[in-house]
Amino acid sequence: MDNFLLMLELIGTISFALSGGMIAIHKKTDFFGVLLLAAVTAVGGGIIRDLIVGKTPPTAFINQIYVLIALATAFILFLCARSNQEKYRQYEIQISTINNIFDAIGLGIFTVVGVQVGQQAEQGENLFFCLFLGVVTAIGGGMIRDLMLKEIPFVLEKQVYAVACLFGGACYWYLTELSSIESDVISIISISIVFAIRMLATKYKWNLPKAIE
Amino acid sequence: MDNFLLMLELIGTISFALSGGMIAIHKKTDFFGVLLLAAVTAVGGGIIRDLIVGKTPPTAFINQIYVLIALATAFILFLCARSNQEKYRQYEIQISTINNIFDAIGLGIFTVVGVQVGQQAEQGENLFFCLFLGVVTAIGGGMIRDLMLKEIPFVLEKQVYAVACLFGGACYWYLTELSSIESDVISIISISIVFAIRMLATKYKWNLPKAIE
Amino acid sequence: MDNFLLMLELIGTISFALSGGMIAIHKKTDFFGVLLLAAVTAVGGGIIRDLIVGKTPPTAFINQIYVLIALATAFILFLCARSNQEKYRQYEIQISTINNIFDAIGLGIFTVVGVQVGQQAEQGENLFFCLFLGVVTAIGGGMIRDLMLKEIPFVLEKQVYAVACLFGGACYWYLTELSSIESDVISIISISIVFAIRMLATKYKWNLPKAIE
Repeated sequence: MDNFLLMLELIGTISFALSGGMIAIHKKTDFFGVLLLAAVTAVGGGIIRDLIVGKTPPTAFINQIYVLIALATAFILFLCARSNQEKYRQYEIQISTINNIFDAIGLGIFTVVGVQVGQQAEQGENLFFCLFLGVVTAIGGGMIRDLMLKEIPFVLEKQVYAVACLFGGACYWYLTELSSIESDVISIISISIVFAIRMLATKYKWNLPKAIE
Repeated sequence: MDNFLLMLELIGTISFALSGGMIAIHKKTDFFGVLLLAAVTAVGGGIIRDLIVGKTPPTAFINQIYVLIALATAFILFLCARSNQEKYRQYEIQISTINNIFDAIGLGIFTVVGVQVGQQAEQGENLFFCLFLGVVTAIGGGMIRDLMLKEIPFVLEKQVYAVACLFGGACYWYLTELSSIESDVISIISISIVFAIRMLATKYKWNLPKAIE
Repeated sequence: MDNFLLMLELIGTISFALSGGMIAIHKKTDFFGVLLLAAVTAVGGGIIRDLIVGKTPPTAFINQIYVLIALATAFILFLCARSNQEKYRQYEIQISTINNIFDAIGLGIFTVVGVQVGQQAEQGENLFFCLFLGVVTAIGGGMIRDLMLKEIPFVLEKQVYAVACLFGGACYWYLTELSSIESDVISIISISIVFAIRMLATKYKWNLPKAIE
């Protein structure tokens, strides 16, 4: 794997670990819960993706760097929050906004990583399959986290999540298959698309229609 | 795969997509939620089954027809419900009855499909293994749907679900192994058994005893 | 597989089946729910572990002894509880204590079994990987059970669960890799460590700190 992709994955891991850890702190789980939910959010999507493509054991189980980075991130987050409890509580809304930004970054990065894994598999020419893997990689960890916290998975309520992944993933797939743009540039474009859609959806509270209002 | 089996799978997919989509509408999820829950209910059981027998990537991820049929079904259902909201609300009890019928059809079909997949695997002569796969294929999608909606999985409350699958699945396995009846006929008999047990259980509110009343 | 390991697995299966069945009875599920939750608690962790190491179909699906033992255990438990409802209700606190002991025994045994499976896999020399498998084998079944019952998984609240597995699993791994002690003796030592940590944590209500009290 090239260095650029590895760097992206580490940034995505830290982003998702922060997002998972902040939700755990908000839900008042203890120290272990913060570590666990940070790790699950960060590597859960990749584990499901690896099981789907038959890559066993999944990368997260044999290459410790992802889990260790997630745990270290959660550990530092926990220390910061605990040593500044008053401040943390006071700024919780701002923290939630920051959390959302990290989440959107992780979402973009893991979508691209998932589509790449799909392209390297046997069915790489199958757009449908690659998009699936992108979405699963990006939202799988958050879904497990929400199920563990007895939340209705965010993806059912903040629907623009999966839609953002689909747009960014399709952009990545088409540009790599059809254009001659350098792969790293395509990654950055696609990640930006996911990030932008998520940020706009949050800011303008985009909502999809319901069948029965 | 022969045409009869494919036709059955498509009917099962439509039935489960309708069942999942109707529950999503009832729970007031938005447009995306209706599509997602319809797709999950329709293909979730098959994905778990494929992971269990080591068929990676699972069929639903590489052959788009199942997901596309489920999405199209949910799309039409959503349009119908939204353009006739008053009527949809008014007839919700009748709709729930119809939902139940579709669910029982899908249950029968996917039980048979699951047992067939088991028979084609290495352990095909193992009744226990084939029945397991039949039950997982039939109830897996509904279980994921219920977990996503924070419902206690139906299979724990409407217990005759799994029992119906076991009877129909065992019937299919024994008849194909021991009789010379044509395979398509056996499928229809077994599907009918699952369907009949589910319908009777609903009508007469069959319940299993509890340890502590 | 040697007889000692098989015996351990059967004891662990019975322990977890009792633990799962008792929780199901407490939650007033019906007969089928008691059987299902006992089986899921007993074999769920092993199924997840097998999927992770790519062992498909998972052992529990092809070797019926584990599921049958779990079902028989739950069946007997159900009969006992139903025929002595008054007594069962009266002694529920004592039963919960007994339940806890069985759970701790199962936890220790399945941790050791999971680490052993890891050591026999390709990445056997990877402590991190083996510990993961030990924890997943030990707590996976209980997590599925809790998700099915809409409980927040115990592992997030009774955190010393996973910590106990980590200590016992690491002890097993180091002693088998570095010492010349007989394997069965190491198993017993490691199981005892997990058991002791869980029992002490329950007795003295050990708790980990929270970020925001």
